[in-house]
Amino acid sequence: MTLWRGGRLATLAGESGWGLVDDGALLVEDGLLRWVGPAAELPPEALAAHEVIELGGALVTPGLVDCHTHLVYAGNRAHEFELRLQGAGYAEIARAGGGIRSTVAATRAASETELLAGATRRAQALMGEGVTTLEVKSGYGLDAATEARMLRVARRLGELGVDVRTTYLAAHALPPEFDDADAYVDTVCRWLPALHVEGLVDAVDAFCEHIAFSPAQVARVFDAARRLGLPVKLHAEQLSDQGGAAMAASFQALSCDHLEYLGTDGIQAMARAGTVAVLLPGAFYALRETRLPPVAALREAGVPLAIATDHNPGSSPTLSPLLMMNMACVLFGLTPEEALRGMTVNGARALGLADRGRLVAGQRADFCVWDGDHPRELATCFGQNPLKERVRLGASQGEA
Amino acid sequence: MTLWRGGRLATLAGESGWGLVDDGALLVEDGLLRWVGPAAELPPEALAAHEVIELGGALVTPGLVDCHTHLVYAGNRAHEFELRLQGAGYAEIARAGGGIRSTVAATRAASETELLAGATRRAQALMGEGVTTLEVKSGYGLDAATEARMLRVARRLGELGVDVRTTYLAAHALPPEFDDADAYVDTVCRWLPALHVEGLVDAVDAFCEHIAFSPAQVARVFDAARRLGLPVKLHAEQLSDQGGAAMAASFQALSCDHLEYLGTDGIQAMARAGTVAVLLPGAFYALRETRLPPVAALREAGVPLAIATDHNPGSSPTLSPLLMMNMACVLFGLTPEEALRGMTVNGARALGLADRGRLVAGQRADFCVWDGDHPRELATCFGQNPLKERVRLGASQGEA
Ligand SMILES: [Zn+2]
Ligand SMILES: [Zn+2]
Repeated sequence: MTLWRGGRLATLAGESGWGLVDDGALLVEDGLLRWVGPAAELPPEALAAHEVIELGGALVTPGLVDCHTHLVYAGNRAHEFELRLQGAGYAEIARAGGGIRSTVAATRAASETELLAGATRRAQALMGEGVTTLEVKSGYGLDAATEARMLRVARRLGELGVDVRTTYLAAHALPPEFDDADAYVDTVCRWLPALHVEGLVDAVDAFCEHIAFSPAQVARVFDAARRLGLPVKLHAEQLSDQGGAAMAASFQALSCDHLEYLGTDGIQAMARAGTVAVLLPGAFYALRETRLPPVAALREAGVPLAIATDHNPGSSPTLSPLLMMNMACVLFGLTPEEALRGMTVNGARALGLADRGRLVAGQRADFCVWDGDHPRELATCFGQNPLKERVRLGASQGEA
Repeated sequence: MTLWRGGRLATLAGESGWGLVDDGALLVEDGLLRWVGPAAELPPEALAAHEVIELGGALVTPGLVDCHTHLVYAGNRAHEFELRLQGAGYAEIARAGGGIRSTVAATRAASETELLAGATRRAQALMGEGVTTLEVKSGYGLDAATEARMLRVARRLGELGVDVRTTYLAAHALPPEFDDADAYVDTVCRWLPALHVEGLVDAVDAFCEHIAFSPAQVARVFDAARRLGLPVKLHAEQLSDQGGAAMAASFQALSCDHLEYLGTDGIQAMARAGTVAVLLPGAFYALRETRLPPVAALREAGVPLAIATDHNPGSSPTLSPLLMMNMACVLFGLTPEEALRGMTVNGARALGLADRGRLVAGQRADFCVWDGDHPRELATCFGQNPLKERVRLGASQGEA
């Protein structure tokens, strides 16, 4: 049993508020929080702690949960970024091999070792800002072998000391081999059981958009997931209102993500189904979008708000969960508390995980120690990293 | 003499273009670049190098120059940020002690040791992203003792292994002791000579805005600077077009900074005077500004574009020069090459320094070694730090 004491805890214990505990203590046993509260009220069993760690007044929050990433891929899209800023149009960029297809080609050509090297570097950057749980999607293979390779690499990231949840996203884009989206959707459904048997799939996702797949097509993928007992989530209403969120809610989706064009029906359906709204301000920022997700209406309807990096090489090449918290405030108008909840307890909820994201007895001992006086500072600054220490399952991952 | 070889160099040698050298080499002697070019063309004197460092294909750029920061202060403004996002109005925030006056009060109350501790942490964060030259302004004292203390702290940051240029910005805001801006401007002019004698002032700056000082008032400060032979620069046309840039150009200002509301006359005056336009996308972003600086017209007129963090606790609490390069592209439409020039050669020029910012023989051996294939990647990503090594005056500052 380990006792951490003398920190300022942002427990997020209640449904709202920071749950601040000044001069707080955490009692950790077997990787779980056994007791959390003011040091002055420590229970008698704290005397049995074999180790006492002084926090020296530092700020402690739950470990960060990045619930939406595309962390495994090869290549980068900097050339495309440069061409666009040099004034090139969409067609010219496509001719230069830009867009998701360039990432698919590079990823298909990369070995598992190469993919793992790149994804390791990226996962370590996220962990360096306090991420203790991380979701990783496939979706740059779009063929059976590469989708499997991506998911295997994602699984292996767990060896770095971060919890990884894998998501099957073969329904991300139409691969060059197919010109019939329905035929490809059939194939996506056919690949799933073998990947599931291999233990590679924790959830199933799709991109529902006029440039990708229709709600009816996605529903077939979700049916295949349901037959295997797998939870679903959706890239929904990013560029237009397709009714994707309502369809996903009818499958009790864990989350719907992006949501800039989400309408009232979708909000109500998500609220009824308990589906989390995952906001992705990095993509909104990088694409210079102007249509804001309906944050006030989501709040009003009681839909939990999560935030994620959406790390990907095209529309959100960021590895900073803290910057996403700041952008959620600056661009979407979230409060700093909503931003922290979005990157902790609600991020966990978007992954179907109820055992983490708050500092309360019984939860996993996943937490971050920060240089700072108040948790609101984490979302106020941008391009700064005040992490002092990352603790996962009670074990310190070393000074940051 | 040290030979660095096997890197991909972005020399920025010409007036435009990256100046890429594949398999490039740098010969460093007495802190200066003696020779830069393709390894295959190394001159005979390279044989005399007593040390050879292999770059292993890494990317090399000039060291970054952050030419506009307010790095020395006490306190933070996270509470104000939170209040605003909770829906508080300007008056309520003012009543809660928000705004620049809260930073002035905290800075006046802080000792030199306290100010140095905070500024050291911030300078090290900038250096951790490749900054080798750094400007630091006063302006949160607004009294003689605190302005001097801020400048002394700024000077002492040079001991960290970064070049520091200090700027006297007492004409930043009207201090609470004064209700007459003209009387305060007289006082600002009166404080300057003693600070200059103490060697604390490399340049003189002011905030020209309807909420601060008029062009006529700033001109008096600039006259005082001119009598001492000190160069000037200006916070100009951030919230309105005051004609500040044209006035500053008439003093051959090194730079005019912000410039969202800069008009044609100001652009022409800056072009004629050789004044650099320093763009500050962090403040633009954090304040949710919508009026863009006239980038195309500045380009057209041949005004050099620099970029800086504008680090300050209120409107730009960022310590990431790379994020500013990305924001300059995403928000202001600069190309990745313009962004790198803005944070190197043009940043140096904004400080009146012609001896750094490019990788060419005769320049200071200040450079950065990055993980990456092409310099455009530096501005494409956001919230990532691929720095491998920072070299200042030929001396490696250790692995990042
Ligand atoms: Zn995504
Ligand atoms: Zn400034």
